[in-house]
Amino acid sequence: MEGVLKMNGAESLVRTLVENSVEVCFTNPGTSEMHFVSALDKVPGVRCVLGLFEGVVTGAADGYYRIADKPASTLLHLGPGLGNGLANLHNAKKANSGIVNIVGEHALHHIECDAPLTSDIEGVARPMSHWVKTAKSSMDVSKEGALAIEQAQQSPGQIATLILPADTAWGPGGEVVKAKKPAARSQISEQVVQRIAKVLSSPGPKALLLGGLALRAESLALAGQIAAKTGCVIHSEYNNARIQRGAGRVKAKSIPFSVNAALEMLKDYKHIVLVGAKKPVAFFGYPNKPSYLFSKDCAIDELVGLGEDIHHALQMLVEHLGASKLKPVLAQLNQPECPDGPFDQAGIAKVLTALIPEHAIVVDESITTGRDFDAFTMSAQPHDWLNLMGGSIGFALPAAVGAAIAAPNRTVLALEGDGSAMYTLQSLWTMARERLNVKVIIFANQSYEILKGELVNVGATGSGEKALSMLSLNSPSLDWVGLAKSQGVEGFRVKDLKEFFHTLKAVIAMNGPQLIEVDMHKPF
Amino acid sequence: MEGVLKMNGAESLVRTLVENSVEVCFTNPGTSEMHFVSALDKVPGVRCVLGLFEGVVTGAADGYYRIADKPASTLLHLGPGLGNGLANLHNAKKANSGIVNIVGEHALHHIECDAPLTSDIEGVARPMSHWVKTAKSSMDVSKEGALAIEQAQQSPGQIATLILPADTAWGPGGEVVKAKKPAARSQISEQVVQRIAKVLSSPGPKALLLGGLALRAESLALAGQIAAKTGCVIHSEYNNARIQRGAGRVKAKSIPFSVNAALEMLKDYKHIVLVGAKKPVAFFGYPNKPSYLFSKDCAIDELVGLGEDIHHALQMLVEHLGASKLKPVLAQLNQPECPDGPFDQAGIAKVLTALIPEHAIVVDESITTGRDFDAFTMSAQPHDWLNLMGGSIGFALPAAVGAAIAAPNRTVLALEGDGSAMYTLQSLWTMARERLNVKVIIFANQSYEILKGELVNVGATGSGEKALSMLSLNSPSLDWVGLAKSQGVEGFRVKDLKEFFHTLKAVIAMNGPQLIEVDMHKPF
Repeated sequence: MEGVLKMNGAESLVRTLVENSVEVCFTNPGTSEMHFVSALDKVPGVRCVLGLFEGVVTGAADGYYRIADKPASTLLHLGPGLGNGLANLHNAKKANSGIVNIVGEHALHHIECDAPLTSDIEGVARPMSHWVKTAKSSMDVSKEGALAIEQAQQSPGQIATLILPADTAWGPGGEVVKAKKPAARSQISEQVVQRIAKVLSSPGPKALLLGGLALRAESLALAGQIAAKTGCVIHSEYNNARIQRGAGRVKAKSIPFSVNAALEMLKDYKHIVLVGAKKPVAFFGYPNKPSYLFSKDCAIDELVGLGEDIHHALQMLVEHLGASKLKPVLAQLNQPECPDGPFDQAGIAKVLTALIPEHAIVVDESITTGRDFDAFTMSAQPHDWLNLMGGSIGFALPAAVGAAIAAPNRTVLALEGDGSAMYTLQSLWTMARERLNVKVIIFANQSYEILKGELVNVGATGSGEKALSMLSLNSPSLDWVGLAKSQGVEGFRVKDLKEFFHTLKAVIAMNGPQLIEVDMHKPF
Repeated sequence: MEGVLKMNGAESLVRTLVENSVEVCFTNPGTSEMHFVSALDKVPGVRCVLGLFEGVVTGAADGYYRIADKPASTLLHLGPGLGNGLANLHNAKKANSGIVNIVGEHALHHIECDAPLTSDIEGVARPMSHWVKTAKSSMDVSKEGALAIEQAQQSPGQIATLILPADTAWGPGGEVVKAKKPAARSQISEQVVQRIAKVLSSPGPKALLLGGLALRAESLALAGQIAAKTGCVIHSEYNNARIQRGAGRVKAKSIPFSVNAALEMLKDYKHIVLVGAKKPVAFFGYPNKPSYLFSKDCAIDELVGLGEDIHHALQMLVEHLGASKLKPVLAQLNQPECPDGPFDQAGIAKVLTALIPEHAIVVDESITTGRDFDAFTMSAQPHDWLNLMGGSIGFALPAAVGAAIAAPNRTVLALEGDGSAMYTLQSLWTMARERLNVKVIIFANQSYEILKGELVNVGATGSGEKALSMLSLNSPSLDWVGLAKSQGVEGFRVKDLKEFFHTLKAVIAMNGPQLIEVDMHKPF
């Protein structure tokens, strides 16, 4: 036991991570984290994944949680390193992903000296964290690490940020601590079930709006039985942290991004029942458009909250309705032939529908290009689909890294706009380094295409050359094949649907990461 | 006047920027900023520079301020967009650069709906801003914009962050507002001059430690006269926001990064007089090493603070000492011949010393590779040298963008480590797009080389393969020529000092941006 007794704070924390099954550390370390790096080296049980920018690190932790259903840790360098990771922590927070952030800090005696890297780390952490704490003693680091893990493991997942002053890492450590098991998800009452059953049995159009764990296959199947019994429509939110879909699954029709289209879709409902979902809200507010997307005479009811036992609530409702023997409507496999001709949204959707491998993980940040994907890809082979949840672009490539590490035997498809890809393109290097089975598809329209529409949506006028130039990425053109190759990832450029089909088919059969640039714009 | 009367909040703000000589907007806009983009389009007088990642935007604003001596504005998309810009705002804050951040926000009525992009923007802004305000009415936006400009123009410069809810941009605007002129820098008293003169005339070794505007050529010349009179040594801090140096200038010897080397350099001083500088402090705290870098029996005095009238204070001291006729020691031009052989720090320093063009701006984030640059390059042609001030890597490429926009007729050299360059490599695209006269030199040692030293410095042990792999960028290798070309910047790889010399000489003679990868490691 001598080795354990002599361990420093950093080692006590790493051993506490291992003890509590936190098995991956996504990291971009600096000087103040060197003892922690050293401890990661010494203690077996934590896989360390280096990102060359912190947005890669935090986005990977989000993707990891969504597939592994448990938190990874990150290791970040002081306030600015955490700052670089904030955008994807924001996305993770909105996805309800649990993450244990470990952020280095100056030694406690050094903070007051106002050295160059000194900043208010707790202040940086707070907007994107549910729980923030700065360790004050090396003896307590393992205890506080266990608290952070407990927080991250809550239902729904939480962002827990433990700030680790260098001297609490190098000073003598305390004992390894077993984190308390997270509380069981609370169950809903029979009264709620009765009330919702009554709502769903009332006349007129009504919908179930599913979110969170309601979108796993087994829960969707229950929703399908409820729909079969009551005639309600099943919806998912515009974006979803993880939805299990494709052939053999019950379809939840997603609410569109466009306010007008969403209002149109929801306008007839008299009741919307939330199942782990939030009241449908517009992505942005616009002049003279409502923020909420349902009609004024629609009642919003909740069956079960995001953090409660969603599956059990659906089971209770199914039983109450006497629907347990009913067959839900399941999507059928229907893989299109290889399409031909120039790129359009439907054609791209067909290629994906034909080729998504069984049990693939699709990480989708295709923004404008992906508007038709939901309708088509439901007849692909069964897969998991992960959306950008916080609206901060630069999510899909890092999340694909994390998903691939959580599920090494599954194929990950990252569907990515070029504008978004540029935010965290360093992810490609990590994919190459870790030989991850990720197929990156860049929809290169050379533009913040969504913003061209938004310029009109918000009623902005007078937009000429200068405004459009701020929304254009075509001067100069980005060479995505080159950006990939320069980071060790093989790249291919495709110019029509047929080339796309055959290239995607080929890369899916290969090991490791590849990138396909879907050249939607530029003449080569 | 009808056009002015009808303008919206966004236009009133853009016109207020123009009225107050804020001439550049570095931007990465989103939906909530579309009215502002539209106003930038409509109103002449603001140059818009697009960055494909917000770290580019804020770093460029820092570089711009250091050369233009006045603030630019940024335009950022909500909390996560600001988050992506935080690290370089941290660096700018530590450099005392003034910046007017304009951050979009949801329309006020939409914030409470907790849409995906909703976050605590003020919370994100506060750690890296001196001043934060959220506009509450479109009529007041121009007034609050003027307040932000006043803040940014303080001495020293401040980070001012104005949060602009979309409806305050699209609603009716108020009048264009002229910002109050910043208060004149305060002057020191005759008593302080007498005290410092006495200190500098006392026996024993003593030093002037210069920071801020003390490092401009004219102030350095005064420091040189003081040194000629009193025998004091002139130092600058380890890093400096902008130092004017090279042939014909007075040299300020910089304090080294290494704690041991710094302690050795400063150990004999009985007095250190601060001139716009801070007490010398170690970059990081280490076990069993002091945080402050001077000896225990050294007295620290201050002649003049960073925000006061530094040049005038030095003039007063020169006059009091009767030194105004003395000739300061000036650096002599001494450009080495083309060196030969493999790369080493001294050889690289020689190439730079030979080739730095007259009045070039050198943006230096060369980290480990640059340790010898200070000693050699003092005999290059006169130039301005800008350091990373906040220790958060990813600074030099964006800052070079901003410096080049502030001084279109000067050559900018960006000296950059490969690890640092990866953080904000999107800067290359902006350089190409704006055809900036930036010569990027990447010191590609394929490693976070500084951390290998730090692993030893902090006394971490047990560091084997796993720890070193977290500090290595060589698996796979990064191809910097490819990364540049893929973003529209011509690139060259050099393998020895001679190739470096001739390639650098050639690119300096070219227009627009080029990149040189100094291949210090990999066998090609």
